[in-house]
Amino acid sequence: MSWEANVRKVVPYTPGEQPGGKHIVKLNTNECPYPPAPAVEKMLKEESYEDLRLYPAPDAGNLVEALASYHGVKKEQVFAGVGSDDVISMAFLTFFNSSKPVFFPDVTYSFYPVWADVYKIPYETKMLDKDFRLVKEDYVTENGGIIIPNPNAPTGLLEPLENIEYIVKNNPESIVIIDEAYVDFAGEGASALPLISRYDNLLVIRTFSKSRALAGLRIGYAVGNERLIKFLNDVKYSINSYTLGRPSLLLGEASIKDDDYFKQTRDKIISTRERLKKDLSALGFTFGDSKSNFIFATHEKYRAKEIFEHLKIEGIYVRYFNSPRIDDHLRITVGTDEEADILVKALDKYMKEAGV
Amino acid sequence: MSWEANVRKVVPYTPGEQPGGKHIVKLNTNECPYPPAPAVEKMLKEESYEDLRLYPAPDAGNLVEALASYHGVKKEQVFAGVGSDDVISMAFLTFFNSSKPVFFPDVTYSFYPVWADVYKIPYETKMLDKDFRLVKEDYVTENGGIIIPNPNAPTGLLEPLENIEYIVKNNPESIVIIDEAYVDFAGEGASALPLISRYDNLLVIRTFSKSRALAGLRIGYAVGNERLIKFLNDVKYSINSYTLGRPSLLLGEASIKDDDYFKQTRDKIISTRERLKKDLSALGFTFGDSKSNFIFATHEKYRAKEIFEHLKIEGIYVRYFNSPRIDDHLRITVGTDEEADILVKALDKYMKEAGV
Repeated sequence: MSWEANVRKVVPYTPGEQPGGKHIVKLNTNECPYPPAPAVEKMLKEESYEDLRLYPAPDAGNLVEALASYHGVKKEQVFAGVGSDDVISMAFLTFFNSSKPVFFPDVTYSFYPVWADVYKIPYETKMLDKDFRLVKEDYVTENGGIIIPNPNAPTGLLEPLENIEYIVKNNPESIVIIDEAYVDFAGEGASALPLISRYDNLLVIRTFSKSRALAGLRIGYAVGNERLIKFLNDVKYSINSYTLGRPSLLLGEASIKDDDYFKQTRDKIISTRERLKKDLSALGFTFGDSKSNFIFATHEKYRAKEIFEHLKIEGIYVRYFNSPRIDDHLRITVGTDEEADILVKALDKYMKEAGV
Repeated sequence: MSWEANVRKVVPYTPGEQPGGKHIVKLNTNECPYPPAPAVEKMLKEESYEDLRLYPAPDAGNLVEALASYHGVKKEQVFAGVGSDDVISMAFLTFFNSSKPVFFPDVTYSFYPVWADVYKIPYETKMLDKDFRLVKEDYVTENGGIIIPNPNAPTGLLEPLENIEYIVKNNPESIVIIDEAYVDFAGEGASALPLISRYDNLLVIRTFSKSRALAGLRIGYAVGNERLIKFLNDVKYSINSYTLGRPSLLLGEASIKDDDYFKQTRDKIISTRERLKKDLSALGFTFGDSKSNFIFATHEKYRAKEIFEHLKIEGIYVRYFNSPRIDDHLRITVGTDEEADILVKALDKYMKEAGV
């Protein structure tokens, strides 16, 4: 049929499986194993059902104000969207509007090339070194923009802030986006947020889906200088005036304000991560030093794909990417200590039975 | 600063004001004056706070299934998004991917040209006749796609289904989108949904924000043949895997299943609309025969802009568009009978005081 000629045809991103059932161990989409903050529960109970008939604030006012105050910036420096995917997608559309290629690492969040394709943005991937580290010098040739996740996904590795600053500083003519979906697990001094006041070409993007245990609400945000945020808002208002619904605005604000609980769960996840590293090492896995809420591991003797499929039969979901350079790795979300134990036991059993 | 050269600069859509305060009469954004269905309230109370840590179903499965069953189509024929704005925006991006111009009426939803601009889609507006009716023959020359709201906004007028079919039938090489945001207020036989099975180039788009009193949740959807919906989903999965959050999926499904309440509130609004028509006529307003939840009125003696500004001072918000051909009209949302009385009284007082 001839209308097909006008259809935008794309190869979409494939999200991790979302299996149902209560008895599975879900370590495949980097969700938080703990519930959201108690303040979120309280607000959910208090939420007015009647107000749902009204549009939400188009500028996500209360949430943006809470975030601005949390980060010590002006509210005009914060942009909120439907998960960081929405925010990044909007940033691609807004800022990567050039005929020069956008740069990002070859091993990274696999959504980047998909966004580039759907918006017809040229791009060029820059190879990470053999240890999956960024080669910062690769990012200082002419480009139409740069996006780097830090910590990187799926490797989990954190790039030192001076390398990030090197890239931002040496690209005054491009917008540099640092995707900090996992930065809360990376310790003090990891975030590029303090650089915002010095570089007007820097945009930092965060999410509520990982460290804030609110993947189900879809909240992401960007912080940058006021002019960047204004351009982003102009594009947003050209696509959908009201993106974040009332529950997201209310519960998101409640989450931000409950900082003690946030720090507690974050610390628990970091502690389980370090424990899991030891256990996986003992089983013969090797991996970089993850600063995120997942571990990206490979094994000399056992094929990642086979482990992945075996674990699935056992009801344990981890993530496997059939992509160049990483097709013998598993990305394992750090769950609770209990979930880590179940995983380690299943791996141990698998290896004993498989032999080698 | 030179990175600005790469920024996509747009003139965004301006949404209606969202004034705060409890004592205002808000008749400016076509929200429903009644609360959502009791089933929504029940589900909000039952919603699991703990599950918010998990991503929602990327395919909006339960909501899509409820909608498919409601409309008697397959679930593969339904696409859900963050309000009909998100769905229409995605449809522009997916289907209007041609160098030929997209057609829509000159007086219509003012977001259409904004979407065309942000996605760099050429377009051509087709003039409505002097009574704001569609000239169907104008839509059968070569084009890159067509979008028509029915009932139209801000006129509120319903185009007979045979005119819609004429346009769909005579454009086999284009996707024709019928935006039915207000069709629930238009009576039996108004919707183009029954044509879906006969025309594979027809996409019908609906929203939960008006007749379902759920503007605060942001839910919209499209119904069409399976191939259209697949193309739409491919683009959606290339932008954001998880658009609708858990509250929207759960409460949206509950709303669809509470059909009695839906019909009751819809009928109440229709009844208030007919009453308000009589009252406005008595005050000397003229308007087309609205089949939506708003009335698009003008007055021979009083300037719309002045009435608009006066009403605002009184705490009554209606919508005024400073646009060609309609800059002497007001779009007045049909609220409750009580709100209609307050409005009519305020208008009456204004006219008496202004004299003329």
